[in-house]
Amino acid sequence: MDKRAIGVFDSGLGGLTCVRELRRLAPGEDLVYFGDTGRVPYGTRSRETIQRYARQDVRFLRSFDLKAIIVACNTVSANALAELRAENDVPVYGTIAPAARVAAASTQNRRVGLIGTAASVRSGAYERAISALDPTLRVYAKACPLFVPLVENGRNRLGDQVVELVAQDYLTEVKAKEVDTLIMGCTHYPLLSAVIAKTMGPGVKLVDSGAECAAAALRDLEEKGLLSGKAAGESRFYVSDSTEDFARLASTFLGESVTGQVERVVIQEY
Amino acid sequence: MDKRAIGVFDSGLGGLTCVRELRRLAPGEDLVYFGDTGRVPYGTRSRETIQRYARQDVRFLRSFDLKAIIVACNTVSANALAELRAENDVPVYGTIAPAARVAAASTQNRRVGLIGTAASVRSGAYERAISALDPTLRVYAKACPLFVPLVENGRNRLGDQVVELVAQDYLTEVKAKEVDTLIMGCTHYPLLSAVIAKTMGPGVKLVDSGAECAAAALRDLEEKGLLSGKAAGESRFYVSDSTEDFARLASTFLGESVTGQVERVVIQEY
Repeated sequence: MDKRAIGVFDSGLGGLTCVRELRRLAPGEDLVYFGDTGRVPYGTRSRETIQRYARQDVRFLRSFDLKAIIVACNTVSANALAELRAENDVPVYGTIAPAARVAAASTQNRRVGLIGTAASVRSGAYERAISALDPTLRVYAKACPLFVPLVENGRNRLGDQVVELVAQDYLTEVKAKEVDTLIMGCTHYPLLSAVIAKTMGPGVKLVDSGAECAAAALRDLEEKGLLSGKAAGESRFYVSDSTEDFARLASTFLGESVTGQVERVVIQEY
Repeated sequence: MDKRAIGVFDSGLGGLTCVRELRRLAPGEDLVYFGDTGRVPYGTRSRETIQRYARQDVRFLRSFDLKAIIVACNTVSANALAELRAENDVPVYGTIAPAARVAAASTQNRRVGLIGTAASVRSGAYERAISALDPTLRVYAKACPLFVPLVENGRNRLGDQVVELVAQDYLTEVKAKEVDTLIMGCTHYPLLSAVIAKTMGPGVKLVDSGAECAAAALRDLEEKGLLSGKAAGESRFYVSDSTEDFARLASTFLGESVTGQVERVVIQEY
């Protein structure tokens, strides 16, 4: 047993979909969340900038005594995971491998779709992970750069004409490939799952990369005997922009009100 | 005459619409442009973060020997201009007052529309500027948070269904107020002017805040005897993310290929 907290970070609020699953599966864990709301989005930036930002995010998290770090951001997982693992002496969990495993196990017709940010898709990380599991699987990837701004502007619901049109525009190509499994390769996208499901049509399984990452990290911590054993854990939230804006939006991602402390961090000092 | 360069900055690429006008009106001026492409957008962030970023941008520009600074960003002009003026001993020009003057002079029916980022609209800066010129003018403001991501994803043209639908969604309310003049209160928006003009319908004058800012700054420098007197000036470009991405996109904003040096800056060190 290890009572230390688990650190979780994302470019912004998307990683809270992972926190939600961590809380559901392991309510006894203490969590420290950092959302880089002052520099979001990461998915449109260069690999070099993503790596610089990710290192600062981890340096901030490591100012706490942590037993593990969860990279609840596909853009960082796809562009900086190896570096973060090499530089840290605690387990660092990413989103790519768990979602790839679930997708490979789920597909019946061997055709998997992948949607994500420009930087995630450009990295080819999902294709490599899936190919390593089963080289006969075909992956059809599509960058969806407007999905994150749509979600962050609260335009994620069925019936919103703009988000439905954008989804149609992005997903038509992937749908035409007749995939039976679609990886939502960005932790913002679960908030679009109703729109994505409607656009893809019935019979397509959606894989939630944030939730799968949470489940995989907890399985590994359990195997290593590192779960807390406590009845109820606490969550602390840190952001690099306004804490009020965070509190207002975060409940959408968490599926419940933010309880516990929310503080602001000057991330560029880390 | 003053042969020193003029510094120009923006959260990203939008300020290049101002550079384009500076080059057209005053080809003899040397320009140093900084685009904070590693932290764009500013328009969704808090006033405090906008001020912190703007101060760093100006500190970087002042590592050159400049005769003036042009804040080619409405979000910064609306949220940090007074601070930047107080902290700098060279003229600092913003976008709000020049565009407000042109709009006030242009409107016949005394109804002016304003579109901009969330932070620009929230600041109320345009309303104050217009009311100071003529308190009988009515201003109808609408934040258009998806316009910047659309432009940055190259979705700015007539015929793109998504941008036309978003424009309709944002502008219907302003159009219903029967404004005869609409301030494009974000230096990204001139790239959407065809879409905006079509949506607003005939008889609405669009005011380009970046172009008006350039013209006003040059008039003031001329009055002060500070223009360069050179036949041909040079432009240097600095960005905080990938220089390749910049060179690729910048020509859209500049209306010509980027000639001259493009370099990367680690802006958080300023």
